[in-house]
Amino acid sequence: MLNLDARHQPLVSLLTEQLEQVAIIFERQLASDMSAVNNLCMHVEQYRGKMLRPSLVLLSGMAAAGDVGDGATLTEKHRIVAAVVEMIHMATLVHDDVLDESQVRRRGATVNHLWGNETAVMLGDYLISNSFHLCSTVGDPSINLALGAVTNTLCEGELVQLHHRNNYSIDRDMYMEIVGRKTASLIGECCRLGGFVSGASDEACAALSRFGSGLGVAFQIQDDLLDLVGDPAVLGKPLGQDLEKGKLTLPVIDHLAQASALERGETLNIVMRGDAASLRARLVESGAVARTIDSALELVAQAKTELPRLPDGPARDLLAAMADNVVSRDR
Amino acid sequence: MLNLDARHQPLVSLLTEQLEQVAIIFERQLASDMSAVNNLCMHVEQYRGKMLRPSLVLLSGMAAAGDVGDGATLTEKHRIVAAVVEMIHMATLVHDDVLDESQVRRRGATVNHLWGNETAVMLGDYLISNSFHLCSTVGDPSINLALGAVTNTLCEGELVQLHHRNNYSIDRDMYMEIVGRKTASLIGECCRLGGFVSGASDEACAALSRFGSGLGVAFQIQDDLLDLVGDPAVLGKPLGQDLEKGKLTLPVIDHLAQASALERGETLNIVMRGDAASLRARLVESGAVARTIDSALELVAQAKTELPRLPDGPARDLLAAMADNVVSRDR
Repeated sequence: MLNLDARHQPLVSLLTEQLEQVAIIFERQLASDMSAVNNLCMHVEQYRGKMLRPSLVLLSGMAAAGDVGDGATLTEKHRIVAAVVEMIHMATLVHDDVLDESQVRRRGATVNHLWGNETAVMLGDYLISNSFHLCSTVGDPSINLALGAVTNTLCEGELVQLHHRNNYSIDRDMYMEIVGRKTASLIGECCRLGGFVSGASDEACAALSRFGSGLGVAFQIQDDLLDLVGDPAVLGKPLGQDLEKGKLTLPVIDHLAQASALERGETLNIVMRGDAASLRARLVESGAVARTIDSALELVAQAKTELPRLPDGPARDLLAAMADNVVSRDR
Repeated sequence: MLNLDARHQPLVSLLTEQLEQVAIIFERQLASDMSAVNNLCMHVEQYRGKMLRPSLVLLSGMAAAGDVGDGATLTEKHRIVAAVVEMIHMATLVHDDVLDESQVRRRGATVNHLWGNETAVMLGDYLISNSFHLCSTVGDPSINLALGAVTNTLCEGELVQLHHRNNYSIDRDMYMEIVGRKTASLIGECCRLGGFVSGASDEACAALSRFGSGLGVAFQIQDDLLDLVGDPAVLGKPLGQDLEKGKLTLPVIDHLAQASALERGETLNIVMRGDAASLRARLVESGAVARTIDSALELVAQAKTELPRLPDGPARDLLAAMADNVVSRDR
């Protein structure tokens, strides 16, 4: 986690230790008596990045419980739920790479590229199945029910997005609907569940859910923006994948909505030709990129207004700092 | 269900009614507020075949409870679990079709053929997610845990099978390991869970589990055999798909194990050429097909020895008749 004020450092260190325990739960859950399966899982574990989702579970749990910053309010239940949401996320990455025919992820080869789409499909299924199995070990059916509802929503978002591939008249509302489902639903639930496991009130849980959802939408907007105007060396994967796959994202949608009929025609031509460099120039010049950044910043500012409903403390402060980081991140 | 003695008819009628209620639970669970998702689910519902797995849940539940044949021992819990296992099965069908690049399933076009692999991957995920969500509505974490463990095992079986594609030295033990995981684990659990929901003793549940596992292995052996020597018009799909995909099945493995060095070389040549007609002739002539049928019959006979551990009654009788049908079926 970059760009964090030095005052967050003690809590970041504690969080790092906790995340190592989460990673152990994650690996233990996936261990199989079949070596062919273990080899694949070891590869997937290299995909692990910032661990945003488990971090949100742990920090939300601490914030809701008024943790003084020593992690005394965290339990094994928090860490299991944190491992579960990371496993769900990993499953979506593995299947997304099949959907996108991606060859590279986090500077390494994708499962589909190394072992074929068939293995990537089944490995993703293995991760989904294990996430539910791990979740069931907590023994609280309401957590299973909540995460099942979220993964339903997440899949709906992906299916609707696929349905709109090469649909060049998709509007901002539909974009938000898709992003809300495929990304924000899980991130919102990470925050809510952290609070829930800490025994927070319904009001605090709802505030955490809204905080996470807003953050999730901003996160996806930033992700989509980076695919257009990011630095491929920093991102660790090639740009322009959304364009290639006929996925219109917010800067393009915003530009098309504001453009004159003539400009609109020219931009659609560029989009259909898949000319990423021309599209990038057009979106920067027309101000669509700047307006998209403003949208993300506004969502983060709005999300942060939920935090005062939680007890004051270092975990709440770090949640706010992480929210700011989501939009300023370059990868 | 064909080839059943007339005395089973009253229970078959009752089961048909119960399965209609299971189908309603299934459809209600998948209903989405996004029309693009509903259209896909309506297509998948046409895949529904004999509903073997939900039938086993319901009949095992009745048999374990000593039902007199009027279904008075069946509860909504049984029907929900029955819908859950059918949904898990449907998910595996949708993803199997992606793995096998199949264009046809039950005489209809596959999801991947109509809408592409991407949509088929996500729709399978939607089905898996919904199966766990529906399972969580029962509110018994032990059922979630058991089904999560089974789907883990099922995915492992598929992954190990993929790992052994084009491995021409795979032996009977590895074949049984794969089949035990990818098919028998779920069918065994269907029977066990039926008994569990009826409150059966651990001994009765274990007997049902063994009955279902044996039946499941026999079922898969028969399925693999039909891909080699079945009638494509009856099966509703082309033959020889396993051969095409480099999957060695029991008749081939058995033939190779018994053949002379010369015959072995000739058969491997035929396998690598993908010459289904020559392979079929060889397997019939060498007696490998007959020996495979014997293996399946023996497994069914063994499975049926578990049934006397359950109370005598019409459901137990129908389970035995269904077991016989698994091996005699031609589709």
